[in-house]
Amino acid sequence: MHYNNGEMITSTQNARVQHIRALQSRAKERREAGSFVVEGVRLAEEVQAAQWPVRQGFYTADLDARGMQLVSELQEAGVDLEEVTESVMAASSDTKTPAGLLLEVARQPLPLAAAPNLVMILDRVNDPGNVGTLLRSAAAAGAHAAILAPGCADPFAPKVLRSGMGAQLRLPLLELEWEPIRNFLAEHKLHALLAEANIGKAFDEVDLTRPLAFIVGGEAHGPSAAARTLGAEPIQIRMPGQIESLNAATAGSLLLFEAVRQRRPR
Amino acid sequence: MHYNNGEMITSTQNARVQHIRALQSRAKERREAGSFVVEGVRLAEEVQAAQWPVRQGFYTADLDARGMQLVSELQEAGVDLEEVTESVMAASSDTKTPAGLLLEVARQPLPLAAAPNLVMILDRVNDPGNVGTLLRSAAAAGAHAAILAPGCADPFAPKVLRSGMGAQLRLPLLELEWEPIRNFLAEHKLHALLAEANIGKAFDEVDLTRPLAFIVGGEAHGPSAAARTLGAEPIQIRMPGQIESLNAATAGSLLLFEAVRQRRPR
Repeated sequence: MHYNNGEMITSTQNARVQHIRALQSRAKERREAGSFVVEGVRLAEEVQAAQWPVRQGFYTADLDARGMQLVSELQEAGVDLEEVTESVMAASSDTKTPAGLLLEVARQPLPLAAAPNLVMILDRVNDPGNVGTLLRSAAAAGAHAAILAPGCADPFAPKVLRSGMGAQLRLPLLELEWEPIRNFLAEHKLHALLAEANIGKAFDEVDLTRPLAFIVGGEAHGPSAAARTLGAEPIQIRMPGQIESLNAATAGSLLLFEAVRQRRPR
Repeated sequence: MHYNNGEMITSTQNARVQHIRALQSRAKERREAGSFVVEGVRLAEEVQAAQWPVRQGFYTADLDARGMQLVSELQEAGVDLEEVTESVMAASSDTKTPAGLLLEVARQPLPLAAAPNLVMILDRVNDPGNVGTLLRSAAAAGAHAAILAPGCADPFAPKVLRSGMGAQLRLPLLELEWEPIRNFLAEHKLHALLAEANIGKAFDEVDLTRPLAFIVGGEAHGPSAAARTLGAEPIQIRMPGQIESLNAATAGSLLLFEAVRQRRPR
């Protein structure tokens, strides 16, 4: 594809704009292109700090000084960043109030630790905000990987990237079927713990210092039948209050940070 | 206002439809009417279980059996529930895929415990999903109240109700300025703990068994200047991983459930 460098893109019919829109809206496009789109100065800075390759990008004239600095740096590094009109940015953006900067980033596999001992498995977590928040918490807790089992939202979808706050750039992500997940657990000798609503030991009365993987289900249906065949140990978060359940991302975060607490040297 | 009972509402120009739309979209309307709108069978069941007064509602013919059962029960109790067309429901609903049932509920003050000893204070948490998730976690943790300081999303906005999953019906909510908050803390002898990014003791190395209030700020700006004048003890959630911060609702939930853990009889 030939890009018309140096002139401002003014038409939403431009092939490049159409490409960005397709990446924003469809997981299939992201998979085929091997790329995704981040928006806003903060996430763009995370991309640069984590040294992920930027393929191209758009910015508008009203971008702030911090954003313009980033644009200059990327352009000096040879990245094709084009100024676009506000209407082109609006058409390219996934948000109602575009941030004035958008980058297409090539997806990179991150190296897995030789002996991962804290892993989060997402089981049919299809809410984009919950997937992003879980990845963010997993990265913050120093988890070695997150595994997305079937039925999860695409970790590189726009909303998931926004709620992940850069976790996708730091945390090794594996999208696997259940049989490979079973093999992964066996290979790394990980004890699997399945978050349940009303059965199992309280999560903070279980030894979380050994190598382990937490399995957290989506809110709509709880753990999948496939997850239940793994022979994982059920655990629960006991709730003193009158409420049916916790948010899925909250539940997963409580498990992760209880492991952090138990593992901290005292 | 006279409502035309018994005939299906087919026009989105109907006064009743306009009233519901106004409640869905504006906090001012909700405040003036002293009511809010819940959607879906699950939340409607919570309303009934918690015995909040229903003023009126809409349903569509495609509502499932569980929903129709609820409609019958409410109608027998004298609530004016009208069948509407799908287009009227679409116009009245806050969601893209309406659930077929919608209720206008009168807002009720919930009685505060005589000696509250676990309180969550939300400081400029303006993301609706985060407010709802924090209220849900506070209710689940058995907190005695949540206080919404200035700058928070309206707890009865549609998105906040959805993410709160009924917490608003169980947990006493106070919307207060900072001076009354200061008085509330003094009156109930609550130790205030302010969630900070990089200062203070680790939250799980602080005694959380005494009567306390956690103050959690929104993600955009951190704690407000007003919150800092309270003389609260700073605490932080230490993160082993390479990530700047946690989601605000996640952070608040970790604090609440650490208090639950420390208070549990062993």
